Amino acid sequence: MKSISVKTQNGYDVLVGTGLLENAADHISEVVRSKKAVIVSDDIVDRLYSSVLEKSLISSGYEIDKFVFKNGEPSKCHTTLVELYEFLASVHISRKDFIVALGGGVVGDLAGFAAATYLRGIDFVQIPTTLLAQIDSSVGGKTAVDIEAGKNLVGAFWQPKLVLCDIDCLSTLSDDIFADGMAEAIKYGVIKSRTLFDKIEKYSEYKSYEDLEEIITECIKIKADVVAEDEFDTGERMLLNFGHTLGHGIEQHYNYSKYTHGSAVAIGMYEITLLCEKYGICEADCAEKIKRLLIKYSLPFKIDFDINELSNVCLNDKKRQSGSMNIIVPETVGNAKILKMSIDDFQRFILGEWKK
Amino acid sequence: MKSISVKTQNGYDVLVGTGLLENAADHISEVVRSKKAVIVSDDIVDRLYSSVLEKSLISSGYEIDKFVFKNGEPSKCHTTLVELYEFLASVHISRKDFIVALGGGVVGDLAGFAAATYLRGIDFVQIPTTLLAQIDSSVGGKTAVDIEAGKNLVGAFWQPKLVLCDIDCLSTLSDDIFADGMAEAIKYGVIKSRTLFDKIEKYSEYKSYEDLEEIITECIKIKADVVAEDEFDTGERMLLNFGHTLGHGIEQHYNYSKYTHGSAVAIGMYEITLLCEKYGICEADCAEKIKRLLIKYSLPFKIDFDINELSNVCLNDKKRQSGSMNIIVPETVGNAKILKMSIDDFQRFILGEWKK
Repeated sequence: MKSISVKTQNGYDVLVGTGLLENAADHISEVVRSKKAVIVSDDIVDRLYSSVLEKSLISSGYEIDKFVFKNGEPSKCHTTLVELYEFLASVHISRKDFIVALGGGVVGDLAGFAAATYLRGIDFVQIPTTLLAQIDSSVGGKTAVDIEAGKNLVGAFWQPKLVLCDIDCLSTLSDDIFADGMAEAIKYGVIKSRTLFDKIEKYSEYKSYEDLEEIITECIKIKADVVAEDEFDTGERMLLNFGHTLGHGIEQHYNYSKYTHGSAVAIGMYEITLLCEKYGICEADCAEKIKRLLIKYSLPFKIDFDINELSNVCLNDKKRQSGSMNIIVPETVGNAKILKMSIDDFQRFILGEWKK
Repeated sequence: MKSISVKTQNGYDVLVGTGLLENAADHISEVVRSKKAVIVSDDIVDRLYSSVLEKSLISSGYEIDKFVFKNGEPSKCHTTLVELYEFLASVHISRKDFIVALGGGVVGDLAGFAAATYLRGIDFVQIPTTLLAQIDSSVGGKTAVDIEAGKNLVGAFWQPKLVLCDIDCLSTLSDDIFADGMAEAIKYGVIKSRTLFDKIEKYSEYKSYEDLEEIITECIKIKADVVAEDEFDTGERMLLNFGHTLGHGIEQHYNYSKYTHGSAVAIGMYEITLLCEKYGICEADCAEKIKRLLIKYSLPFKIDFDINELSNVCLNDKKRQSGSMNIIVPETVGNAKILKMSIDDFQRFILGEWKK
């Protein structure tokens, strides 16, 4: 088992390993004093993993209630949120008690936001069950729900008391959903660690448990470092958006139906790197290296609609409002920097007409 | 004009005086850099004061949109909140822009919570227009909305960038609503300042503007000190609940219809002090002094239903869940302490059967 300390204002540990779910109570009791909690999960994850978690908690004397909602992004809304609040009140959750978020990103975001706001904030423990959630949304304290006007437009920064990344949970993921997470892992490699990038390349061939544990731990370490530097997302943390500005645009173009988040980010990473190469601001074979690795995980890399349209959907993004855009430039694999430019320059950049 | 610094993690100033609304832009521009804001108000306050505020802001080059909802506590719910979020998105409010809350406690709580959570937190300025909001809800960073299960069960600690308490706004308050605020002012006197208590007594006879400015400033100073000591409400801040445990019970008994918050707190202060006297844990004439002052403001002081019922409704309060209750004991007028006791002892206390 590996342990990573996240050094935010209210710091916490992320544990990575196997058997964490069945021993959850031992780990939780070290960081939360209350013996009363609500497990929040979606119907798919509930069926697979709730019983193991409940067994651990109940046999250690915890009083447990459970709130289960339908899986999928449409549930990350105020309707589910208000149901969850009323449920917390109905089972008498007090300011000392806590929430356990068991599931992927949707569960973590929604349960985390409920924890941030119920009684003006109660503790929560995150048990992410997808690769993407383990390496991405479980670290950094960003919680959120969607509104009609857009995804994640409402939320709070709220750090969990503990994150348990149980690798056993990943065994039930489909190849698609696993690759979805790998796209984010590749991102961490590109922006911060050539060693990690190479490890991910190797993993695709051998698929050893040890390699996977190392990859996840390395990704979380990178994210934890970046987040500790910039908890409230005003600078350095933007590096984590590598591939995401285009990725979000692609997701939006297809109304969040054709591509998963990871696949859209995969395309975003390749396409933006290709553009950076064109302008001579990154190493010559960077895009090719990324492409090779994306293909290994059957991830897409090439945009399949008009580039004019892309710059438009990117600019519908909430980032537009600030009057400038940030492009994350991978100078080499393992080292990226932030390039700030005007909205107009960003449009020229995407269309291949930018002048340095 | 008086200025009080609130020394929370993100500190801010509260200005008290006249003409603040018509010069709002001057004060706001000193603490917020963006020139784009949404004014949030209710229909009554909007009719009375929005135009003065808008004139000040627009003539100073601010881009202003306005969100107005129906006055009253029932609006402090997720329906209004989600409408407000969608409105903020529709007028392109970014992370750098801000909200101005213009109104009483309901407006401040709702707009403050929206500010705390829209885009994971944007700035907000509070312009409280009732006496109660000026001396109570505008200081301390507690924002909230109600759910079916109870009032203020969802919220966040979120400090404003600036609070403008314009005394001119109080001129349109009915005597009832003014007295509602005075009940809270009396509370500050009892728990912390005999001088303030005496000043409130004097004000009831002369009603001078200078006295009122002094009373408001003194109340805010007391609250600011207590809040700076205990921003997240885990200790000392409980002193501010003097009269409130019984008060909330009384409000609930009448389903929030018969008494205003201030009136219920008035009864709560008198009745709890009477009990404290009975047990010999406060000065002998304390309840009488409080009663005299409540009468001057036509505030009620005597509970008008069965005391058995009172201890039940108090224990329906969310405070119950913690397994213990805190009673605020006014040892003398101007000096209160926190007395923690078990739920059972609390019940005995209310019924007059408590043993020290």
